[in-house]
Amino acid sequence: MSDGKTRVVVVGGGFGGLYAAKALRRAPARVTICDRNNYHLFQPLLYQVATGGLSPGEIAAPIRRVLRQQANTEVLLADVREIDLARREVHHASGHVPYDYLIVATGAGHSYLGHLEWQSVAPGLKTLEDALSIRRRIYIAYEQAEDCGDPVLRRALLDFVVIGGGPTGVELAGAIAEIARRTLRRNFRHIDPAASRIILIEAGPRILPGLAPELAAWATKTLGAMGVEVRTGVPVTDVTRDGVRLVGDYIPARTVIWAAGVEASPLGGDLAAQRDRLGRVQVSSDLSLPDHPEVFVVGDLAHVVAPDGRPLPGVAPVAMQEGRHAARNIARRLAGLPTEPFRYRDRGALATIGRKAAVADIRGVRLVGLTAWLAWLFVHIMYLIGFDNRVAVLWHWAYAYATFERSDRLITGGPGESAGRSG
Amino acid sequence: MSDGKTRVVVVGGGFGGLYAAKALRRAPARVTICDRNNYHLFQPLLYQVATGGLSPGEIAAPIRRVLRQQANTEVLLADVREIDLARREVHHASGHVPYDYLIVATGAGHSYLGHLEWQSVAPGLKTLEDALSIRRRIYIAYEQAEDCGDPVLRRALLDFVVIGGGPTGVELAGAIAEIARRTLRRNFRHIDPAASRIILIEAGPRILPGLAPELAAWATKTLGAMGVEVRTGVPVTDVTRDGVRLVGDYIPARTVIWAAGVEASPLGGDLAAQRDRLGRVQVSSDLSLPDHPEVFVVGDLAHVVAPDGRPLPGVAPVAMQEGRHAARNIARRLAGLPTEPFRYRDRGALATIGRKAAVADIRGVRLVGLTAWLAWLFVHIMYLIGFDNRVAVLWHWAYAYATFERSDRLITGGPGESAGRSG
Repeated sequence: MSDGKTRVVVVGGGFGGLYAAKALRRAPARVTICDRNNYHLFQPLLYQVATGGLSPGEIAAPIRRVLRQQANTEVLLADVREIDLARREVHHASGHVPYDYLIVATGAGHSYLGHLEWQSVAPGLKTLEDALSIRRRIYIAYEQAEDCGDPVLRRALLDFVVIGGGPTGVELAGAIAEIARRTLRRNFRHIDPAASRIILIEAGPRILPGLAPELAAWATKTLGAMGVEVRTGVPVTDVTRDGVRLVGDYIPARTVIWAAGVEASPLGGDLAAQRDRLGRVQVSSDLSLPDHPEVFVVGDLAHVVAPDGRPLPGVAPVAMQEGRHAARNIARRLAGLPTEPFRYRDRGALATIGRKAAVADIRGVRLVGLTAWLAWLFVHIMYLIGFDNRVAVLWHWAYAYATFERSDRLITGGPGESAGRSG
Repeated sequence: MSDGKTRVVVVGGGFGGLYAAKALRRAPARVTICDRNNYHLFQPLLYQVATGGLSPGEIAAPIRRVLRQQANTEVLLADVREIDLARREVHHASGHVPYDYLIVATGAGHSYLGHLEWQSVAPGLKTLEDALSIRRRIYIAYEQAEDCGDPVLRRALLDFVVIGGGPTGVELAGAIAEIARRTLRRNFRHIDPAASRIILIEAGPRILPGLAPELAAWATKTLGAMGVEVRTGVPVTDVTRDGVRLVGDYIPARTVIWAAGVEASPLGGDLAAQRDRLGRVQVSSDLSLPDHPEVFVVGDLAHVVAPDGRPLPGVAPVAMQEGRHAARNIARRLAGLPTEPFRYRDRGALATIGRKAAVADIRGVRLVGLTAWLAWLFVHIMYLIGFDNRVAVLWHWAYAYATFERSDRLITGGPGESAGRSG
């Protein structure tokens, strides 16, 4: 298959990789996009899958379907294990793919701050598998509490701890509070789900550090009114299956969710470049590697500095813009033009807390409550891929708004759950 | 928790168990329904989850939610392992539940006709896990074919065998043909999905043995026009991961689906009653056990004979009516009245083949094509539980009708799929 055309390989089908591939649709090149999953995942709504509000298929789109009309592009389902910069090859489980230009967009995973033993007791939220695992833990805790004769254990089953006060932690804590107070009402006979304690722990001085202090203050107050205890400035010292130890305190809770830290994809280690303490790769201003101008790094794996000197946050808009920019720079190179430096256009930040409650900072305009929530809904529906998904998600949201129900409360995939004898 | 009230335990939350529990809502008894899953599964649409047309959450409803207003009923998430008729106890993984009356509705699993080694290569379709596993196999076969340099292996990856010509086998074969011919169009660069062979194998003389011969003939013709090869009268002699061996023939195919036989739940072995060759329990005319009038068996686990002497088929309407009848007989006993014999009201049978194509036999009126297909749609939406699910399913069907897309093509849960390194 060598038709003489330049070969561009994109590794990763998240926001960075998918938007890069789309931006290459008119490039005079053969484009291959690899991902270990056959779908692009809309991570901003992953917390809704984790809390039963949406189904996995509704926030994911097959990469092939998205790119099917793009004749110069092929999709490869492959788990990339290694990048060989010298040979210009990408190695996956069953072969390798050569490249002339490479865009690496493999994102980030969880960081347990050196405590890998916490991973099995406090799952993080990055993949659909993570989301279904968290969902299973939340709903099974109530099932076990319903059938539990020991009041101390029942208390620990009813209580939830979310570690990390960024947007994901806030969204999860808010959604769990709504499940406890509203969704599960009248569902049980021996417990009152509304008696659940939901505790959001943040080591830093406040939640939502990426947003203005007054927005964080409003979010803290709103979470409190919804029944979430927000505890800031308290570092976690240990996490076990029975609970969470803090400096000077211990919270017995059987369900602990980790939203406290990320670490860039280990593929960054193959890129012969400096990395920051989160493992992100230091790139040149045009997003290429300093010693390999044919390799670009975008999204959560890239360490890109904003004009104020701070690294850009690991959010979808940054990844999309970087992906598009790397694609454009490759197209410029192919046209014999010099690359251009990347500049992030910050259109604002949003975080949702619950029903009719969100905070938004849109180019300095700060919104809270219903207006911010509507802005949040609009932006998320707009960027969700697939008309089919958009309508389904809007329907589930409208139904949930009217009834407090969550459309997909299935407990699936537990250890040994499907090996039983009863049917 | 002994308030002196009679305790009725229902084991199994399928059609039989759930409709029994619902029918007990006004009974002067404490009702407990146990299932190893937290949801009721609408099995007639399971093939659509297996082929990517619907998401798991759309054909399942939490049992707690369905029964939340029923004050005399509690739901227990429990994998029942044993029934102790002498002590009148149901034993599950973490305890036991005593009963005064018991309804056993644990259904059926697959039967591999003594060839358990076929199970891992040719999965059957009974649970959501089965459906996701079949979906993964179908879509991953195309992914592997796209990246396969060996023409013989590629051929085997593109070909599909469905074993068993009952309604499930027909539905699966028809849906796979639509995926190959329409859904995946333009999605690949190195293969043509429309070149897939889909072979439906039936050991008996014709497909759809439960329906009239002319309906089966129409279905065979329609399947042929859709690109499904129907082969009847050919018993399978071996199934391996490379293909299917028949008497006098061998079909290389990497994706084989088993829809050829069922076997009643092994819990039937605890019921001290005669069982037929499929493991179904012979019950008295009132659906109770001959030696244990306090124990009722309903649904696919029960062997109930129709007036024509043939056992009733393992379909949803039979299970629903039996469940309701057992509940009514318990209520009669509680009121000091004698039980009544069960009589099945046969409202007809339906099987769908594809777009605008189904066959129906409604009280002797035989329909084929669009009319039967609309009847099929109507009945399935009507019995699907949850307004939320009904709207979502109707939407996905309308969208699929207009575009040939399938809303949930995610490949999930494969062996080692989520353990990679790329992000």
